[in-house]
Amino acid sequence: MDDLPRPSPGRRRRAWRGRYLTMKDNVRIVLVEITHPGNIGAAARAMKNMGLSQLYLVRPQGFPSAEATARAAGADDLLARAMVCDDLDEALTGCGLVFGASARARKISWPQLDPRAAAARVASVGEKAAVVFGREHAGLTNEELDRCTHLLTIPTVPEFSSLNVAAAVQVVSYELRMATAPPAAAADQARLATAEQRERFYQHLEQVLLDLEFLDPANPKHLMRRLRRLFNRVELDENEVHILRGILTAVARKAS
Amino acid sequence: MDDLPRPSPGRRRRAWRGRYLTMKDNVRIVLVEITHPGNIGAAARAMKNMGLSQLYLVRPQGFPSAEATARAAGADDLLARAMVCDDLDEALTGCGLVFGASARARKISWPQLDPRAAAARVASVGEKAAVVFGREHAGLTNEELDRCTHLLTIPTVPEFSSLNVAAAVQVVSYELRMATAPPAAAADQARLATAEQRERFYQHLEQVLLDLEFLDPANPKHLMRRLRRLFNRVELDENEVHILRGILTAVARKAS
Repeated sequence: MDDLPRPSPGRRRRAWRGRYLTMKDNVRIVLVEITHPGNIGAAARAMKNMGLSQLYLVRPQGFPSAEATARAAGADDLLARAMVCDDLDEALTGCGLVFGASARARKISWPQLDPRAAAARVASVGEKAAVVFGREHAGLTNEELDRCTHLLTIPTVPEFSSLNVAAAVQVVSYELRMATAPPAAAADQARLATAEQRERFYQHLEQVLLDLEFLDPANPKHLMRRLRRLFNRVELDENEVHILRGILTAVARKAS
Repeated sequence: MDDLPRPSPGRRRRAWRGRYLTMKDNVRIVLVEITHPGNIGAAARAMKNMGLSQLYLVRPQGFPSAEATARAAGADDLLARAMVCDDLDEALTGCGLVFGASARARKISWPQLDPRAAAARVASVGEKAAVVFGREHAGLTNEELDRCTHLLTIPTVPEFSSLNVAAAVQVVSYELRMATAPPAAAADQARLATAEQRERFYQHLEQVLLDLEFLDPANPKHLMRRLRRLFNRVELDENEVHILRGILTAVARKAS
């Protein structure tokens, strides 16, 4: 599968493409001693959804496994290419920025970022970076965190702060994508109605409502202003104006 | 468990608290015809991590179940209080804003928001809101989306756009918390060193490096400027300055 944005002549588009390539190839997700293979699969799926591909597993238990593949739900290519490492240092080779995920605030002062700030840092630096997640119940050890340039903490309620590890990978991967992905292509939407089209619609509406004796001919403006506010707010497209004027024409025919 | 922020005299704090209460009580997560109980449990955990509590289940399969409870990992209170509904209309009663999660861009024009924009909308309106997630493989039907005021689409790579439903709940719950939670309490960190403390450290460092004949006495400034840049960048705290000056003192004693 090719998940690069299609080439486009726009300069802005090319700039985004460069950042996107950087993210896909340069950011690795490192999982340390994960014991539930389902979590590894779910993490791979989360990564692939967000355009990441570099999965590193330090001493995983029960991997590869059918459960990991099932939970990957189509991201099994990431599992097949995952780098299985004996220790964390091996998984971090070549990485400049290293973020260690931790729910706990540490006593010792430590540069601590939330996922949004961490993703912004990764996007602006453009070098190899790693985000390291620890064991399901125990997280990362202090010795492992000592290898990290930054602590990454996902904001939670204080009383229930332990995210599932794949859920944490999902949040971080999402923020990495938000920080670097090309702007979403505009949906195949109808063109907005222009000011003139809207004015003709309002005149049409006012005339029909007068014919229906719904509006007070001496003072039609108050209600019309409310109706204008309503229809302006919905940002009518051209098709919708056609539909509404069709309805008005049908009403006028019936009422005459 | 009480996950309200503790009262504080600060006015800003109180304002945040109000928004936080609003979010917790006013935002419901609605899951439609989920077939894997594990996903319901994982969604409850994700919600509770982020301070949400209102879970609505439309025609869930195999609920309650041990698997849901296991994956909830301590958020079983949300499962116990979940509202099980026969249809979507029942689950949406009282809701102003209704966001329907959808991976697909629709032909018909529809107000489509990403999770960040949706969370900002929820936070600014402060009325009852719902975010609706559909079946694992089929999502929401068009009839169900017709009940939504907005489409919510989580940005993904185009080729692999289907998130696990609990992962999608995690991303949305995270953005809701980012939009409304009180700023994280500052970690129990040492105070930053002041400008004077830094200057005394640099003078101490320069003197020791001159004594070591490491600096050129005729032109010590170039290297000192590099060292200043390094130590300024790390935003030394008071304890760290004490430690570094202790090292300098020990070096000077040994070298004299």
